[in-house]
Amino acid sequence: MKFTINRKYFYEKLAIVSRAISPVSSMPILSGILFEVTPEKIILTASDMKISIQTTIYPNEENNLTIYESGSLVLEGKYISEIVRKMDSESVNFELVDTTLVRISNELGVFHLNGSPRSAYPDLDYYEPKNHFQLPKKELKDIVSQTSFACSNSEKTQRPVLTGINFKANEHELYCSATDTYRLARKKIQLNEPKEFNITISQKSLNDIVRSIEEDEENVDIYVDNTKAQFRFDETLYQTNLLDGKFPDIERIIPTEFISFFQSDSLELLRAIDRTDFIRMEKVHMIRLECNTHEVRIKAKSNEIGDSNEVLATASYTGEKLTITCNGTYLNDAIKALNTDRVEIDFTGELKPFRLTNPEDDSILMIVVPLRSYD
Amino acid sequence: MKFTINRKYFYEKLAIVSRAISPVSSMPILSGILFEVTPEKIILTASDMKISIQTTIYPNEENNLTIYESGSLVLEGKYISEIVRKMDSESVNFELVDTTLVRISNELGVFHLNGSPRSAYPDLDYYEPKNHFQLPKKELKDIVSQTSFACSNSEKTQRPVLTGINFKANEHELYCSATDTYRLARKKIQLNEPKEFNITISQKSLNDIVRSIEEDEENVDIYVDNTKAQFRFDETLYQTNLLDGKFPDIERIIPTEFISFFQSDSLELLRAIDRTDFIRMEKVHMIRLECNTHEVRIKAKSNEIGDSNEVLATASYTGEKLTITCNGTYLNDAIKALNTDRVEIDFTGELKPFRLTNPEDDSILMIVVPLRSYD
Repeated sequence: MKFTINRKYFYEKLAIVSRAISPVSSMPILSGILFEVTPEKIILTASDMKISIQTTIYPNEENNLTIYESGSLVLEGKYISEIVRKMDSESVNFELVDTTLVRISNELGVFHLNGSPRSAYPDLDYYEPKNHFQLPKKELKDIVSQTSFACSNSEKTQRPVLTGINFKANEHELYCSATDTYRLARKKIQLNEPKEFNITISQKSLNDIVRSIEEDEENVDIYVDNTKAQFRFDETLYQTNLLDGKFPDIERIIPTEFISFFQSDSLELLRAIDRTDFIRMEKVHMIRLECNTHEVRIKAKSNEIGDSNEVLATASYTGEKLTITCNGTYLNDAIKALNTDRVEIDFTGELKPFRLTNPEDDSILMIVVPLRSYD
Repeated sequence: MKFTINRKYFYEKLAIVSRAISPVSSMPILSGILFEVTPEKIILTASDMKISIQTTIYPNEENNLTIYESGSLVLEGKYISEIVRKMDSESVNFELVDTTLVRISNELGVFHLNGSPRSAYPDLDYYEPKNHFQLPKKELKDIVSQTSFACSNSEKTQRPVLTGINFKANEHELYCSATDTYRLARKKIQLNEPKEFNITISQKSLNDIVRSIEEDEENVDIYVDNTKAQFRFDETLYQTNLLDGKFPDIERIIPTEFISFFQSDSLELLRAIDRTDFIRMEKVHMIRLECNTHEVRIKAKSNEIGDSNEVLATASYTGEKLTITCNGTYLNDAIKALNTDRVEIDFTGELKPFRLTNPEDDSILMIVVPLRSYD
């Protein structure tokens, strides 16, 4: 194994596969990155056995890769990444100098790193699941950024399926949903071909994928079946096991008929919610919206700390007078993820889930379940 | 108590006194800020009984302070700071509406905050220590930024006096020193009048003070005696108890005769040290400098991980051939604090403390104690 490559380019590829390395792996070899060098290419692989990432580097003008000798080796991910990141040179040389000892060098300096043989690394199965569809990179990024906040926190939940984003295809429509049962985010996407599947992918995997994707107009190829999902983009293959368990039937929760309608400037509402953040009842950031056609007030109260009471200057409201109490943090998350200048909130009753939407984009909706009032 | 004031100005003053509030205070009232409002001014006070900060606000064009009613009250520091920080308005109104309930408002919103009476707050003694001297603000900042890194970590040390910076005045010279016994930083300052004292002030207090000082050409007035130090600047009084214990006699450790001399570009040396950071022997970042007149190499080695070997391209060296092993993190800290493009290192022998200086500023020096070599 011997090659020379542009240092920054190589570091970026190491960073992509490193996302599969778990800090708490049961198998020590899995803290390593597998290097496989053939005369035509380098394949880098990392895995925690649930998630596997493989990226291929072919010689090109950007990476200046020259391969002198084939070979393979497993190198500790964090050490090799740190060396390549911190070297000052334009390019970097790799050479196997002993069975598992690699020499990494530039003009001025040299590092020796102890590795492990390729035979110590587990064999991973990269078969391609049958169901194939494509999403523009931008669309996949939007799905993740607009829904993943509503997933359950992985450390706390009793239902692992809620730590993922559900992808449910029905003919030409793909519904991407996340919920922790207190709130929900759903984004609707149009597919080019009719599809039929219902799978849930961990939000951690999806966030890693969108961080690895380059910014361009290309599509991501996605292959799914009943056990795994595979994403292919930019010479990278990212595969992840699906989350087990039945994702809740969220259609039942989404209200369709409303009795009153609120709109306001998003930023003003976000700032008003944020100002009440320290007024907590048993650690919950509980706020109340008092709505009538004349004005909308946002209030918060804690017996110990004090209270607040503010008029929302940019709000408009139509419908019956209504007071609703909810978790201010959930409201804040939903408004931010809508990513809109103006937010619409539609109500169905004082104790019933309400819907948040972007008046200019009907592909996305949020639901928040209210709390019982504090008085 | 009733007044109106510019919001940002007031927030900055709250931030300054808040630095005295300890997150783990034995007296609940000390998580509060004492407001004392008279017809002419507002005095804000916070304290953890060891450190007390008091700042006075007189009406001026910048703060637009208008005082309508005198009065006093203690308000929870973190709540009042958060409200004032997050309100969107130019100015903010304060009014005592009940014995200890304060109303904080702007055009659109109102907060009520429960406070405590002034009588619940301890009386603090602000007598002025007799020994007075002045330092330009810039000079005080340099002292702290160039020496405090060498203090002992307060959580670990058995000798609390080493968590402070020692100020030792002898005639017209003030020596400001910090050491954790493995390394040392000393800055020499010229005083306008002859003085004689030897005190140690916690580096935490000194860092708080320099963060509170405005950027201008003014002096800080410093008053010291055997029990406390008082700093006066920008209408703020910061007083802190001195650290108990005898500060080591560092003059004995500072070498004055040298056998060899090294110079290099600071940034190159810092980057080379940083590149070896992951090669650790029993968690210690141990590096070796191999110096001769022909070249200087920096090396690191760990049986488990591997090794590194690099030439320092910008280094020059005069004197006998010498190999020195030391903690790379300590070397890194010292070079950074010298704040110089080029660093000079003078050696007295392979196992003897060595000196780092800035060739263009003889007021500052660093000492690092070497380690025994790993082979």
